Amino acid sequence: MKVTNNIQDIRHMRWQQPAATWGLVPTMGFLHEGHISLVRRARAENDFVAATIYVNPTQFAPTEDLSTYPRDLPHDLALLEAAGADLVFTPDDSIMYPAGFQTYVTVEEVTRVLEGASRPTHFRGVTTIVAKLFNLIQPTRAYFGQKDYQQTAVLRQMVTDLNFNLDMIICPTVREADGLAMSSRNKYLDPAQRAGATVLSRTLAAGVAALQAGERDANRLRAMMQAMIAAEPLARLDYISVAHPRTLAELVEVADEAVLSTAVFFHRTRLIDNMLWQESQS
Amino acid sequence: MKVTNNIQDIRHMRWQQPAATWGLVPTMGFLHEGHISLVRRARAENDFVAATIYVNPTQFAPTEDLSTYPRDLPHDLALLEAAGADLVFTPDDSIMYPAGFQTYVTVEEVTRVLEGASRPTHFRGVTTIVAKLFNLIQPTRAYFGQKDYQQTAVLRQMVTDLNFNLDMIICPTVREADGLAMSSRNKYLDPAQRAGATVLSRTLAAGVAALQAGERDANRLRAMMQAMIAAEPLARLDYISVAHPRTLAELVEVADEAVLSTAVFFHRTRLIDNMLWQESQS
Repeated sequence: MKVTNNIQDIRHMRWQQPAATWGLVPTMGFLHEGHISLVRRARAENDFVAATIYVNPTQFAPTEDLSTYPRDLPHDLALLEAAGADLVFTPDDSIMYPAGFQTYVTVEEVTRVLEGASRPTHFRGVTTIVAKLFNLIQPTRAYFGQKDYQQTAVLRQMVTDLNFNLDMIICPTVREADGLAMSSRNKYLDPAQRAGATVLSRTLAAGVAALQAGERDANRLRAMMQAMIAAEPLARLDYISVAHPRTLAELVEVADEAVLSTAVFFHRTRLIDNMLWQESQS
Repeated sequence: MKVTNNIQDIRHMRWQQPAATWGLVPTMGFLHEGHISLVRRARAENDFVAATIYVNPTQFAPTEDLSTYPRDLPHDLALLEAAGADLVFTPDDSIMYPAGFQTYVTVEEVTRVLEGASRPTHFRGVTTIVAKLFNLIQPTRAYFGQKDYQQTAVLRQMVTDLNFNLDMIICPTVREADGLAMSSRNKYLDPAQRAGATVLSRTLAAGVAALQAGERDANRLRAMMQAMIAAEPLARLDYISVAHPRTLAELVEVADEAVLSTAVFFHRTRLIDNMLWQESQS
């Protein structure tokens, strides 16, 4: 496994065999089983697998946790090697945003709601860095976790609109035994918060169960889920959503599919989760 | 020479020989010797040459000449075939901007002056369509004329910032015998305007001659050139500039290089031209 922060190394390795397929797994490091599930899938589907580890400053607001975002490069590299990565790109800010940098990729409508409403500059940072990584690695397939659902919707839109020549592969959220979605930010939780944090997955699962049982009124679904979050004393709701899976527009009446999503604060730690529901074909 | 508006055809042809080099010449059609000089250079430097013909609506303001922009596809295709193009992509708006399109590439500082100041939405349209064409063709080299100098500076910045894996090749402006820079918009000029339009190249050449003779005060240069434009009765000056060739910031004192540029109206027709000056190495 080659580890480099050098763009020429990346280009060289990528184009040594021009016909080979490459899978890309972009990460901010501090890897957990969610990330590794993406690497394993990429390993199974491509000739070569590249991962990137870079805590991207442009997707953090000044008030957010950029400086304290957890990092553990030796552990990350051991996990990536074990999962079969061939190449790990570990750039720093001087490589990704050199002096004079001034170009941004912006996706409009689908970034304005949910995470984008709470974090107005976040997705511009995500789409810009991912466009750069796509151009640096030029992967055949790029792997992202469903955990960051809106991110996957935004990036799909970018790939379609800018005609990137790659397939977006969205992989299922990996969860702890009690249902909590794996996240590098879970380490911020104290034991009581960690116990309370199961409210996200329990609430979303209850929403899916209600849909499964025939509920189609999105306001009733939101109210029911909101009440479940409110019942957890350590949780402070940011948003609860019943939306169209592609546009993320809030639904009034659910037709045959919806994405249920929520963001919840535990003191300063903000957790997100989502579940996708599609009516089974009969 | 294959002519297609189909993206799958493009991908197929581009990747039949993954190791081959490709040159790309993006155009809005109504081709003249300036465009063809780019195709010939691309032909000489690459295994395959792709040209694109697409009048891109997002780079026109509502008040501009989108609907009347000149078009002559049969003539364009004959010229491209004669110059040795292998592939011509001729999409329409439904292919380039399908319903739901919402992603834009924006370059900041360098787009705010000169053409960008006069045409505030222009460069966002240019960078977005060129990013799309880069991703569709995935060229080894992309060819642009120096005639649209700021466009080349903006696109260079985009290529650097977003890490596009290609070389930008900027080719000299091709001129009529009397010095007028070739442009599809020259056909809008009536005979008197056409005669007066040589004021652009005469003025810029006088600026270069002054620099060559040792003038380094940018205000004096601008004043001298402004007076030359003012002396042409059919001309109405939009801007005259003595700027840094990469950032396009206006200079106070010229050091060892500058780009002189101007935009001039003849009634409703707006012409641009530029000349680059670099101190000869002694």
